[in-house]
Amino acid sequence: MPLHPEICLKDLSPAHARMALDVVRFMEGQGVSLGGGRLLVALSGGADSTALLVLFCALRSTLGVTLHAAHLDHALRAESAAEAEACRALCASLGVPFFLRREDVAERACEWQCGIEEAGRRARYAFLEECRLQCGADWVLTAHHVGDLAEDMLMRFTRGAGWPGLGGMRAVLDEPARAEGEHGAEAARRILRPLLMREKRELVEMLLGLGVQWQEDASNQSREWKRNRMRNDVLPLLLAENPSLYDNVRRLWRSACEDRRWWDERLSGALAERGEGTAREISIPAGVLVSLERAGRLRAWAEAVRRMDIGQARADTLESMEEVWLKRRFPRRFSFSGGVKAEIEASGVRFFWSPER
Amino acid sequence: MPLHPEICLKDLSPAHARMALDVVRFMEGQGVSLGGGRLLVALSGGADSTALLVLFCALRSTLGVTLHAAHLDHALRAESAAEAEACRALCASLGVPFFLRREDVAERACEWQCGIEEAGRRARYAFLEECRLQCGADWVLTAHHVGDLAEDMLMRFTRGAGWPGLGGMRAVLDEPARAEGEHGAEAARRILRPLLMREKRELVEMLLGLGVQWQEDASNQSREWKRNRMRNDVLPLLLAENPSLYDNVRRLWRSACEDRRWWDERLSGALAERGEGTAREISIPAGVLVSLERAGRLRAWAEAVRRMDIGQARADTLESMEEVWLKRRFPRRFSFSGGVKAEIEASGVRFFWSPER
Repeated sequence: MPLHPEICLKDLSPAHARMALDVVRFMEGQGVSLGGGRLLVALSGGADSTALLVLFCALRSTLGVTLHAAHLDHALRAESAAEAEACRALCASLGVPFFLRREDVAERACEWQCGIEEAGRRARYAFLEECRLQCGADWVLTAHHVGDLAEDMLMRFTRGAGWPGLGGMRAVLDEPARAEGEHGAEAARRILRPLLMREKRELVEMLLGLGVQWQEDASNQSREWKRNRMRNDVLPLLLAENPSLYDNVRRLWRSACEDRRWWDERLSGALAERGEGTAREISIPAGVLVSLERAGRLRAWAEAVRRMDIGQARADTLESMEEVWLKRRFPRRFSFSGGVKAEIEASGVRFFWSPER
Repeated sequence: MPLHPEICLKDLSPAHARMALDVVRFMEGQGVSLGGGRLLVALSGGADSTALLVLFCALRSTLGVTLHAAHLDHALRAESAAEAEACRALCASLGVPFFLRREDVAERACEWQCGIEEAGRRARYAFLEECRLQCGADWVLTAHHVGDLAEDMLMRFTRGAGWPGLGGMRAVLDEPARAEGEHGAEAARRILRPLLMREKRELVEMLLGLGVQWQEDASNQSREWKRNRMRNDVLPLLLAENPSLYDNVRRLWRSACEDRRWWDERLSGALAERGEGTAREISIPAGVLVSLERAGRLRAWAEAVRRMDIGQARADTLESMEEVWLKRRFPRRFSFSGGVKAEIEASGVRFFWSPER
């Protein structure tokens, strides 16, 4: 294996060195300058995250960044401990300090009363955030690529997202901890997705070119997981219809970012926040609601729910709120997950936390 | 067969009578009052359009409308002439004047140098518009339902539509004739899609309840057509993930309508039009372009292309125009189908028709 702690851009093919610099520019376009920072790579050991780690190692000297890596062994498959050790060896060969934890995700799923996929996601992000704080990293880097983004758009379409949510996951996520979420407390998230515009093909090519091995997670093929079914069953059909699908996905994503920014600006000032934690309240006065048209008001409802840190609201709940407001059927109270309530009255709407059902 | 020229809402089950009235209310919500009008039903003879015809026959006395029906025999399958005769018989039993034409669509595809699907679409809409003018109908009614809408959204996603285009086909289409289109001249279209929020299941149930027969078009199962592959391969996978998918599709469609209206209002006045036919020009002065942010400007480019009657512009062309404008790389000329050009200069952009390449 040609990997060594001094790997740099010159060790990559010219095309892959260009890709590395494009990745940096992409993050700059998202308002994040990576230079001189401390970064924690979320390393599953699969092709995507292995490529992410190698790419940033090659960028280390150019950017002047310090790297760490973290792997959560989900203990769901017999081979997972060996995979964790392979991650450790990879990091050792690249001179990257390595965090490892083994967590029984199946047990967590029972404890948290949620599915295995959701428990894995939650345990992983909590672990990553813990490691980030421990090593003092500015950001956690994850290896989501444009194939994951396409998958995410289809999942959101299927689950019923509106616009711009339909445009898929963000490249920069800077969320505070949630005291109360659908499944209890959730860790803060400071996440970058630098590979979001890249194709898996490019990442695999780079690894093959360098002779770097990775580990295929057998569960990625399992039809048990919804995300895999989108990836393995639906996406190939759409790609067969249009081999340039990923170009469209990138464009749609950019336009969703654009529109999100636009609506954010337009709605900034519409929502009045006060208090912290479970004492937090968000209100939108009647005057503001009247000044917005329906398209804006629906987004104001959604933004308030988002800021109450209870995840994404269902579109039909937002439509019901809008109808109550429009037809002046107040006072009316809506309940959200985590004990959050919204009360609509003639004076406007108020979101607050209340333990009563 | 219990069909007769006096069929009315009382002949339907209460649920289907309610559906019929919902359909009328849906069109009213779209700003179209059907009462007292003259309507032409596009009748393929399949379940959807048969249900559409029966539904509007049952509404005839309530609405005070006059109905006609039209069937284009595409001459692509051996059984098509028999199907056309079945349509004639159905209309006779319902007392609806019937237009029939047989057109060799395969031949048209050669002549127009386009695919069979596209040739069929174009021949069909030209025929329907001809019939509409002949019988003096206000609108052509087509039987697109929420399953077709979901399919259309997926097609648009795959082909690369932006927002709100991604929200799918309109319920009301009122387009003038196009002198020059991608495949030459195109007929005007005045189309309503009253069933757009209904499910095929409801339509079939109504027909079964009334004992009305319809004809299964075998080519609907053919994997040769892109639309069928979406319908038969992709949609069932998404419906398996979320059985309430169609609720989300309806909501997404409504929100796209909302946003389209919103952007239309915002952009009205931004585009200056003059002239007719191939002398038509649309311009957007620099001052207006500067006043719009990127999200608005991209939609202004798209709207201008739409008004030049050359179909939908490719999103990457619109992005290139935006880049030329932003980076002030003018003068620069873009070419669209049908001989339409766009010229970007410091003074703004001008769309015009020019035969030169």
